[in-house]
Amino acid sequence: MKLSKANLDQKLDHTYDAIIVGGGAGGLSTAIYLARYRLSCLVIEKGLGRSFWMQHLTNYLGLSPDTPGRDLLKQGQEHALDLGVDFLNGFVEHAEDKDDIFSVRVKVGKKDSIYPTFKSKYIVAASGLIDNLPQLEDMQNVYDYAGYNLHVCMICDGYEMADKKCGLFVSREGAINTAFVLNWFTPYISVFTNGEFEVGDQMRTKLAEHGYPLYESPIAKFLGENNEMDGVELVDGTKVELETGLVAMGSHYYNDYLKDIDLERNGENIITDEMCRSSHPRIFALGDLKQGLNQVSIAVADGTLAATGIWRDIRRSSPPRLWSENVAVASK
Amino acid sequence: MKLSKANLDQKLDHTYDAIIVGGGAGGLSTAIYLARYRLSCLVIEKGLGRSFWMQHLTNYLGLSPDTPGRDLLKQGQEHALDLGVDFLNGFVEHAEDKDDIFSVRVKVGKKDSIYPTFKSKYIVAASGLIDNLPQLEDMQNVYDYAGYNLHVCMICDGYEMADKKCGLFVSREGAINTAFVLNWFTPYISVFTNGEFEVGDQMRTKLAEHGYPLYESPIAKFLGENNEMDGVELVDGTKVELETGLVAMGSHYYNDYLKDIDLERNGENIITDEMCRSSHPRIFALGDLKQGLNQVSIAVADGTLAATGIWRDIRRSSPPRLWSENVAVASK
Repeated sequence: MKLSKANLDQKLDHTYDAIIVGGGAGGLSTAIYLARYRLSCLVIEKGLGRSFWMQHLTNYLGLSPDTPGRDLLKQGQEHALDLGVDFLNGFVEHAEDKDDIFSVRVKVGKKDSIYPTFKSKYIVAASGLIDNLPQLEDMQNVYDYAGYNLHVCMICDGYEMADKKCGLFVSREGAINTAFVLNWFTPYISVFTNGEFEVGDQMRTKLAEHGYPLYESPIAKFLGENNEMDGVELVDGTKVELETGLVAMGSHYYNDYLKDIDLERNGENIITDEMCRSSHPRIFALGDLKQGLNQVSIAVADGTLAATGIWRDIRRSSPPRLWSENVAVASK
Repeated sequence: MKLSKANLDQKLDHTYDAIIVGGGAGGLSTAIYLARYRLSCLVIEKGLGRSFWMQHLTNYLGLSPDTPGRDLLKQGQEHALDLGVDFLNGFVEHAEDKDDIFSVRVKVGKKDSIYPTFKSKYIVAASGLIDNLPQLEDMQNVYDYAGYNLHVCMICDGYEMADKKCGLFVSREGAINTAFVLNWFTPYISVFTNGEFEVGDQMRTKLAEHGYPLYESPIAKFLGENNEMDGVELVDGTKVELETGLVAMGSHYYNDYLKDIDLERNGENIITDEMCRSSHPRIFALGDLKQGLNQVSIAVADGTLAATGIWRDIRRSSPPRLWSENVAVASK
């Protein structure tokens, strides 16, 4: 059922089998599988995640490639709710593990917030990340194009950038190396540092050898109309004509709620085994939070794996169900 | 494009980046990703695979749970064809690796068959398996219920069997242990050996302790109507009332075409790394053919991984694309 400020009190005494932090592709897939394994779970979704912003799910089997990410989320929510999953809009602030039960504190409501704590045996960290975007004075100017022809994922959208004049937007030198992968799709690459860092001589030479111009003045604004970016204007007055763009400025990972729990990590990524189990035996991590490809298909499969791992644990530690009537007869 | 006897001659001289054996969930996902990585591929589909028989995709995120498997396949085929993937109905008989190029021989057409050979750099083994079913004199009687309420996959359909009187159909003693997992969903389990093997004393005792009756007479027929099985009649005349069933009789793996290539295996499963690469560096194996869960979501993710692995290989061994015009200017 949908939980809200009005009815969540009913569930504060319940110990869920799992609390799923994040209602994106991975979290919803986990919820569907857990419910079908007859386990109880609560999905807590802060809203406006990465899949919400996808204009087109270009490569997810079974859905037309023009399906927006939010349609996938809507279908998945309905699917999960029909199976009896609980769903709450809120922001998970903190998780604590005590006596093998997690206490998960959630901020609910932007105004007049309340801070309920829910309990669970397992946590599924499916809270993902959000891509950093160029920080301009007028952020609406960025949002007008981000997710349309200003992309954030080369695997998802390299195909759409093929042979087009493409701006590559970076905020540190290492990210310029993205150009030497992006050139599989297009060689017409212009690199923009937004004036945020110095580029070393070696990288300048490499860019020059490939013919990829480097623009180091800060960005004044993106040019274009109707969500179709067609260039960039720099503060030094330069205008650069573009047909598409790729932002490679890193990501913000939503996993602060796990900060008091010691988990093995590689950078920001949580290290998991083949069932998506982290180094904590009752915490699973999915999709963009763990190492690997950041793709909807991967997150959905991760949900399958995590739910199955949790089911196996709980099943194996539960007494077997007997056909009591027959046992009684046999023992007479 | 769709290939057929009439036009496949056009493609016999082409060396595909990859030939994908199997047009199920894994193969189609691979094809969509490869095409979006701008690589050429041919999907060869024998028809009537496991996903074709699924009456309801109960747990695949993004599709309504009553979506039949064949709808997923149809959507995926259209998606792949729109991206320029080649598609051929045929049965892959043999693959041979020579000078880093595979020759893949295909039987096309059930009548007046022809046996063309296609070439590729990579093979993606996505040919899956088909579940063994009880072999009765009248197989139509089995097909009337298989995939409806006579299930073959507990993870997929355990939820539908919950608390119902369930027949477990096995063909060797080890498979009877399925009962002690199935009892998570229902304790009302009757085990049927179809008279195919002897059950040892230890297993008899274990079944009796759980209250799960054992029927060792061969099956005469399934009872029911409108695809709804409601019992079994044995040749000894016994009738057993059931509400659902699970067939756990193993599977036939479609991988004979790889028999002359040495691959590491675990039983019938091909062992793969985290990108679904087998022990042969240019053969990837997906979904039900590899170790792991036999789920649509897993196969779809496997396709993402295999295609990405192939793309990385080919990209890294290709010369970088330069923006030649700028390089020319710079070198003046």
